[in-house]
Amino acid sequence: MYTPKMLNGLLSNYMNQNSFQLAPQELLEPVNYILQLGGKRLRPLLMLMTYNLYKEDVKAALPAAYAYEIFHNFSLVHDDIMDEAAIRRGQTTIHKKYGINTGILSGDVMLIYAYRYLSQITNKGNLSKIVNIFNKTATDVCIGQQYDMNFETEDAITVEEYLKMIEYKTASLIASSMKTGAILAEVDDKDCNHIFEFGRNIGIAFQLQDDILDTFGNAATFGKRIGGDIVQNKKTYLVIKALELANVAQKKQLQELLSTIPEDEATKIKKVTELFNALHIKEIANKKKEEYHVLAMNHLQAVNVSKDKKLYLMELAKSLLKRKY
Amino acid sequence: MYTPKMLNGLLSNYMNQNSFQLAPQELLEPVNYILQLGGKRLRPLLMLMTYNLYKEDVKAALPAAYAYEIFHNFSLVHDDIMDEAAIRRGQTTIHKKYGINTGILSGDVMLIYAYRYLSQITNKGNLSKIVNIFNKTATDVCIGQQYDMNFETEDAITVEEYLKMIEYKTASLIASSMKTGAILAEVDDKDCNHIFEFGRNIGIAFQLQDDILDTFGNAATFGKRIGGDIVQNKKTYLVIKALELANVAQKKQLQELLSTIPEDEATKIKKVTELFNALHIKEIANKKKEEYHVLAMNHLQAVNVSKDKKLYLMELAKSLLKRKY
Repeated sequence: MYTPKMLNGLLSNYMNQNSFQLAPQELLEPVNYILQLGGKRLRPLLMLMTYNLYKEDVKAALPAAYAYEIFHNFSLVHDDIMDEAAIRRGQTTIHKKYGINTGILSGDVMLIYAYRYLSQITNKGNLSKIVNIFNKTATDVCIGQQYDMNFETEDAITVEEYLKMIEYKTASLIASSMKTGAILAEVDDKDCNHIFEFGRNIGIAFQLQDDILDTFGNAATFGKRIGGDIVQNKKTYLVIKALELANVAQKKQLQELLSTIPEDEATKIKKVTELFNALHIKEIANKKKEEYHVLAMNHLQAVNVSKDKKLYLMELAKSLLKRKY
Repeated sequence: MYTPKMLNGLLSNYMNQNSFQLAPQELLEPVNYILQLGGKRLRPLLMLMTYNLYKEDVKAALPAAYAYEIFHNFSLVHDDIMDEAAIRRGQTTIHKKYGINTGILSGDVMLIYAYRYLSQITNKGNLSKIVNIFNKTATDVCIGQQYDMNFETEDAITVEEYLKMIEYKTASLIASSMKTGAILAEVDDKDCNHIFEFGRNIGIAFQLQDDILDTFGNAATFGKRIGGDIVQNKKTYLVIKALELANVAQKKQLQELLSTIPEDEATKIKKVTELFNALHIKEIANKKKEEYHVLAMNHLQAVNVSKDKKLYLMELAKSLLKRKY
């Protein structure tokens, strides 16, 4: 069995050997730029770890793993345009660096290349199943992004609606990536389902941690601007929960703060954070995150492989939900 | 054998029965809007006609045909953003009607749905081949768009470079659509290749006609603004050929006209058109178009089916290259 570090090494090698070969330069450069910024490469790693629960020839899962990483990067590039984000992984976003047109087109090429690598799985008998899952999760990610944008101008978002949105936008891809690893390893439907549910619940918990870090993280390690969600009036779990728990005066203040784009962003971030603190939102969000963590662990426990093989996934999940970046 | 009109009817029915089922409305509405604007539906029609050269159960080719039409619409939506086009098929473009973010995201969903329908072909044994061709042509379309954008700010584009660009951007998808029809009909490689080359040459001729219509067409029937290419300083075949044939004074005038975005667009269009007329550019472009038409016909002749079966394709090609819209 491979350690996550070894799997990351195999993935890096594969990605380097399979860097995009594209002319013209105007299209190739932005794609290489975003892929070489690194990131956590969580989705391909989880796919490889899942495959490796059952089988040792992990190279067989590398093309599909790469496909999921390319897709994830495509979605970041297009989302960053829509969200007008200037920084990603501590660096300038593609559309800020190269222009919106380049952002759109290089994203399109990445989406196509995701399918290209997905089609390179060796056992073509699985292709139809793998592509169907990918089509479904790719659509989910777009739906999630649309809900996320809708929420910015909608007032009364419930916690349930929010959790559904992050399930589409974030958890679906993580869950499908892992399920794809299981299918490639020819695992039965019961295990495939538990693997998917582990990924889905970890994905939701992962996004809740992201929400927490966006306000309470450390700028040096987080890689994005602290308070970005607040500036953008994003309806995160923190905001929705705060609006639910606030008294009349706090609610009025929070709604006012989150309905404007002020010149003094730092003050806005400070005031909203103070309100979160007064309402213990960070602790509440951490508790919710832990609930999903427990759900995920229950599904992992039900997966039909020996307990010692599951340790890497357990450790990774734990570290993801305590991460600072 | 089906007439093109009958095939169009089958395609329309299939498209209506398989309209996108998507929530939220903000994502569904723009997709339905562009797909219901109609257009020529040339790529799926050519695929069905190709399949029908060999086989009668044309329904087997409908999912892949729909996939190509969806992809074509995706590329129009994203290109219209990049080209800042306001009108498509005589109607407001998606990004002008719903905003750029909606244009990006609904385009993304369409690209994913193209793969979704492509994956629905009944003979899964062909899936890998069909998807590989689609990946290649989809990448070509993006490369062509990048070259097209590059050309806007480059000075000395040769006719060869221009023809390569339209091969990527337009002809590749037409050729691949037809080849896919042939593969679905289980045709041998030799015929597949002749079909592809027919499509490629017709595709180039088709784009040359598009260039001609953009300047010399009739606004009422064309569906786009007459002179749009001139306003945008697009390096079309007309411009490249005019620069090649112009005397020193004409060249200077044309370069000046095509390096500015003037307030008075009508005068710019008029002056450039006058220069084209003085240099007989329309006639030269028509001649070039006819050369590709002849090449296409030679490949069609070599296709191993009886001559009477090829009549519909011959007629369609002829009407496309004489079209006014």
